[in-house]
Amino acid sequence: MNSGLATLRAVPMFERLDATLLTRLDAITAVTHLPPGHLLCRQGEQAAHLHILLDGQVALSGIAPDGAETVLEVAQPVSHFVLAAVLTDMPYLMSARTVTRSRVLMLPAPGLRALTRTEPALALALLGAMARDYRAMVRQVRDLRLRTAAQRLGCYLLALVAEAPGNTARLRLPFDKALLASRLGCRQDSLSRAFATLREYGVETHGAAVALHNIAALQAFALPDELADLPTDPG
Amino acid sequence: MNSGLATLRAVPMFERLDATLLTRLDAITAVTHLPPGHLLCRQGEQAAHLHILLDGQVALSGIAPDGAETVLEVAQPVSHFVLAAVLTDMPYLMSARTVTRSRVLMLPAPGLRALTRTEPALALALLGAMARDYRAMVRQVRDLRLRTAAQRLGCYLLALVAEAPGNTARLRLPFDKALLASRLGCRQDSLSRAFATLREYGVETHGAAVALHNIAALQAFALPDELADLPTDPG
Repeated sequence: MNSGLATLRAVPMFERLDATLLTRLDAITAVTHLPPGHLLCRQGEQAAHLHILLDGQVALSGIAPDGAETVLEVAQPVSHFVLAAVLTDMPYLMSARTVTRSRVLMLPAPGLRALTRTEPALALALLGAMARDYRAMVRQVRDLRLRTAAQRLGCYLLALVAEAPGNTARLRLPFDKALLASRLGCRQDSLSRAFATLREYGVETHGAAVALHNIAALQAFALPDELADLPTDPG
Repeated sequence: MNSGLATLRAVPMFERLDATLLTRLDAITAVTHLPPGHLLCRQGEQAAHLHILLDGQVALSGIAPDGAETVLEVAQPVSHFVLAAVLTDMPYLMSARTVTRSRVLMLPAPGLRALTRTEPALALALLGAMARDYRAMVRQVRDLRLRTAAQRLGCYLLALVAEAPGNTARLRLPFDKALLASRLGCRQDSLSRAFATLREYGVETHGAAVALHNIAALQAFALPDELADLPTDPG
């Protein structure tokens, strides 16, 4: 089953491509519906598909040679993953597993690389996406090196309410606290201590429900980056 | 002063470009010679140039809003930096400062973006470079999350002697221990403890001189990744 032009056009990195090119992409794209816990990519295996998440959540994790695992990101719709492995024709650096029931576009790596070589507009679109992916990873390195777990949690919560006006907001954590701890690069007991620390800055939690009573104080403590990327193409 | 075709052809990401395209790149490229401590890019400023380091060393650092600084990478020749900021026309996420006297190619961002839009071969070359940069950053995130400072130091030393045959090797640290500590994401006292830990695994240091007496034991402790990228273009 192909995905349809409307679906592909709703993928941010493809939104500027013309109908002819989208039709060629559509011809190699399959849609899959997956249950929770399904392994989509296994770290170390040769890259087979670019994945684009349309609905659901997918955990991207790295595994050390001793078997220790860490969640590098939890992909949210609409976003892609393992683009760099597909472009370089190298093994996946991450494993990808669905957290919830998910709908995913799958573009075969050889076909996508062939189209990228012959369609300059596609190469430019992927170049913009790759550069933004890189910048997100640089931010995460900075975050791990320069912030405490409590500050990282504060920045994470602030990003979830980035659109909210005023000094208060309510939100729901998008996934459970075990996954959140791994995503933030800390153990679950550290995450509990981080939530306790943030109480001083107006953060109140009841299960997955979180209230921020003093966004200005939380910002002053967590020091989120001012540099946020907007989705743009190169040039 | 322009750089010359031979200089540009020696840049890994440009090595497959034809002479016509290299000539067009050369026309916008300047070579600069810089003293130690020279600030090339300031985090938060709009990207002005792609930089390619030909000789010397350049520290790439991130700075938190409270002024804390961490060295994300120490660029070695021949390598580029701030490519993602140039391609996305966004502010630099890192500051770049020469560590030693350095020779650097500078390609103005607007000119490079214009050439990228009209020259598909250049777009593909930059896409390959961007994907490899991304994978290096993913490795660093995994490293920070999954390894102790002593294991990170072990992996770093092993990478410096990656070409050495046999179970022993000698090397010189390429820069001082303050910079090395920052590059590894730890404080200087943690680096001293990490070197002390590695003595058990046959690592002997005298200033910048390091002897590895038992590479197999060091590998078994530090668990370096088996997944190493080779320089390839997409497809």
